[in-house]
Amino acid sequence: MAEFPFDIDGVDGEARTGVLTTPRGAIRTPAFMPVGTAATVKALYVDQVEAAGADIILGNTYHLMLRPTAERVHRLGGLHRFMRWSGPILTDSGGYQVYSLSSLRKMSEEAVTFRSHIDGSAHTLSPERSIEIQADLLGADICMQLDECTPYPCEKEEAAESLRLSARWGSRSKDAFGGRETQALFGIVQGSTYPDLRRESAGRVVETGFDGYAIGGLAVGEGHERMCEILDCTTDLLPTGRPRYLMGVGKPIDLLEAVARGVDMFDCALPTRSGRHGQAWTWDGPINLKNAKYADDDSPLDEASNCPASRDYSKAYLNHLVRSGEYLGSMLLTWHNVWFYQDLMDRMRNAIADGSLGALRNELRRKWMGGSD
Amino acid sequence: MAEFPFDIDGVDGEARTGVLTTPRGAIRTPAFMPVGTAATVKALYVDQVEAAGADIILGNTYHLMLRPTAERVHRLGGLHRFMRWSGPILTDSGGYQVYSLSSLRKMSEEAVTFRSHIDGSAHTLSPERSIEIQADLLGADICMQLDECTPYPCEKEEAAESLRLSARWGSRSKDAFGGRETQALFGIVQGSTYPDLRRESAGRVVETGFDGYAIGGLAVGEGHERMCEILDCTTDLLPTGRPRYLMGVGKPIDLLEAVARGVDMFDCALPTRSGRHGQAWTWDGPINLKNAKYADDDSPLDEASNCPASRDYSKAYLNHLVRSGEYLGSMLLTWHNVWFYQDLMDRMRNAIADGSLGALRNELRRKWMGGSD
Repeated sequence: MAEFPFDIDGVDGEARTGVLTTPRGAIRTPAFMPVGTAATVKALYVDQVEAAGADIILGNTYHLMLRPTAERVHRLGGLHRFMRWSGPILTDSGGYQVYSLSSLRKMSEEAVTFRSHIDGSAHTLSPERSIEIQADLLGADICMQLDECTPYPCEKEEAAESLRLSARWGSRSKDAFGGRETQALFGIVQGSTYPDLRRESAGRVVETGFDGYAIGGLAVGEGHERMCEILDCTTDLLPTGRPRYLMGVGKPIDLLEAVARGVDMFDCALPTRSGRHGQAWTWDGPINLKNAKYADDDSPLDEASNCPASRDYSKAYLNHLVRSGEYLGSMLLTWHNVWFYQDLMDRMRNAIADGSLGALRNELRRKWMGGSD
Repeated sequence: MAEFPFDIDGVDGEARTGVLTTPRGAIRTPAFMPVGTAATVKALYVDQVEAAGADIILGNTYHLMLRPTAERVHRLGGLHRFMRWSGPILTDSGGYQVYSLSSLRKMSEEAVTFRSHIDGSAHTLSPERSIEIQADLLGADICMQLDECTPYPCEKEEAAESLRLSARWGSRSKDAFGGRETQALFGIVQGSTYPDLRRESAGRVVETGFDGYAIGGLAVGEGHERMCEILDCTTDLLPTGRPRYLMGVGKPIDLLEAVARGVDMFDCALPTRSGRHGQAWTWDGPINLKNAKYADDDSPLDEASNCPASRDYSKAYLNHLVRSGEYLGSMLLTWHNVWFYQDLMDRMRNAIADGSLGALRNELRRKWMGGSD
């Protein structure tokens, strides 16, 4: 298995800041990975994603294996070249989208079979096939083991059986991944909302041994408080010296609280998706640009930002664009949100480094939740 | 009326190249104006429009008066500031969209009343109101007289009555425009496909006297050949020393042939609209990126272009984006098309200046029509 050095440069409580070094570049942690589902971070040019401060992006195995197909991406030189992103890429295993998007899926010990949400065609995803797609065909820098993501709520017995299947798939994923030197493989902890199952899952995943450890099965409806509780009893079961990745999370407040609990990496479609729907995330909380009160508001979203979308366009203009259904409204708000998320990660990294994460957390909690902890 | 100096620097047959100078900057002619209907050139950042080489853009009075309203644009500092375009803007009169988009319209000598296609609200557009919106509220650099655009085909009697109404409205538009010094007003020649009516209309419009002369009522279904025939009998009725503007045109071949017939300015939604629908205009003709034959085509649209969208992205990637309905597909193809149109105008300007428009015309006609003239 690869050595992707993870150097922790600062600690503040449970929170850590550092650098995960990959052959394609350094990832400053805590890191937020913009989601590039179908080989594009929606409504952005790839150089805008880089300029926003993102060190790594995420690609979705499920979407890419269906269209344009992993084989085609491979023929065209791999995902980095195809989409013109030269930094590191993490791909998910495809499992989560199979559960949430496809129809007629059938689980077995061997693999999951399903039908495409695009054209109904039949496909099979096994731990081995997922690794082949991610590592060999797409050429991801960080691959994820195939796992099963339980819904919320989930009966305990079902969650237990599921995490054990995920653990066996993790072991098979590692075998399939083999001794690759320029790519890394992360395992995934499941166990729904049950602390003892999270402990069991973490034990199995750590025993198998991966380059990094993801926490899956959260942000599926359990809510912010419950998510924090699960993090409280999960992150300290994972090795201190390797990156911890909370999958599919989340709102800025979720990132803040998860970082405070020792999480190093995140991905979420929220900043891009909400940008396409008229929502901007700001230091004062989220605002909906469709709201009529912005129609005559000549101020920008954030005059102190270095992001042109945040600094140079009036809320009145954004309101007009969003209400008119103009592409530029989605383009500007996505740009703003992706940049804001990176600025938030930057502020957290700096706060951890100088021991002021608690003060930042209190300041932002006051604004975002109406109270401090 | 303003003095917008129009200096013709070169002539090649009927074609001319020159510069129309406005207080907000020089417009190199022949010029193509990208269409910024609702205060945005769809799917582009405004600095991309400038970098593509556009000296002037067009705004639509009809759309802007309905949303966000001309009064709101005025309160927010005018259209230039609202949409962050510092170069010249030409606005249409609103008439054409009233005829093509709105419902329940009612013509009178005084004005046209209609219902908004957005919310059904009632509005009135008179020559005086159109000038107020364009010149006072939006702050356009070049305003257009209100006219009536006849459909194709059109009975001769109807076309005759219509052009006479347009002529009276042109006179009222000029009166309403008054002695503005930093803005210009263009008149519009109508007359459908009838040479004698075109002559009558041109005579009336020139007699009234404007800063520039537009040819309206074409590109409404009459076809390329018929359009060229009408241009043949219209452009030489217009003053040599003032710019001639062919409204709503067109395809690259239309621009080429109209320039050869002495037209100086154009606007058309085609490059932006077709870009959003997967079509790219190239020196070899239009291509549809949705076509399966591009799925494995690793070559760019035009490796010799200075436009990043044309030069840096493979057709295979564009095919994937378009088929996936991704924003980035529309963004890249619109960018390519707007840049291509500006490159085409640049080539025509250079060809006129060095007397080689005929050669360029033969070269491009061969590629675009399968034959030379």
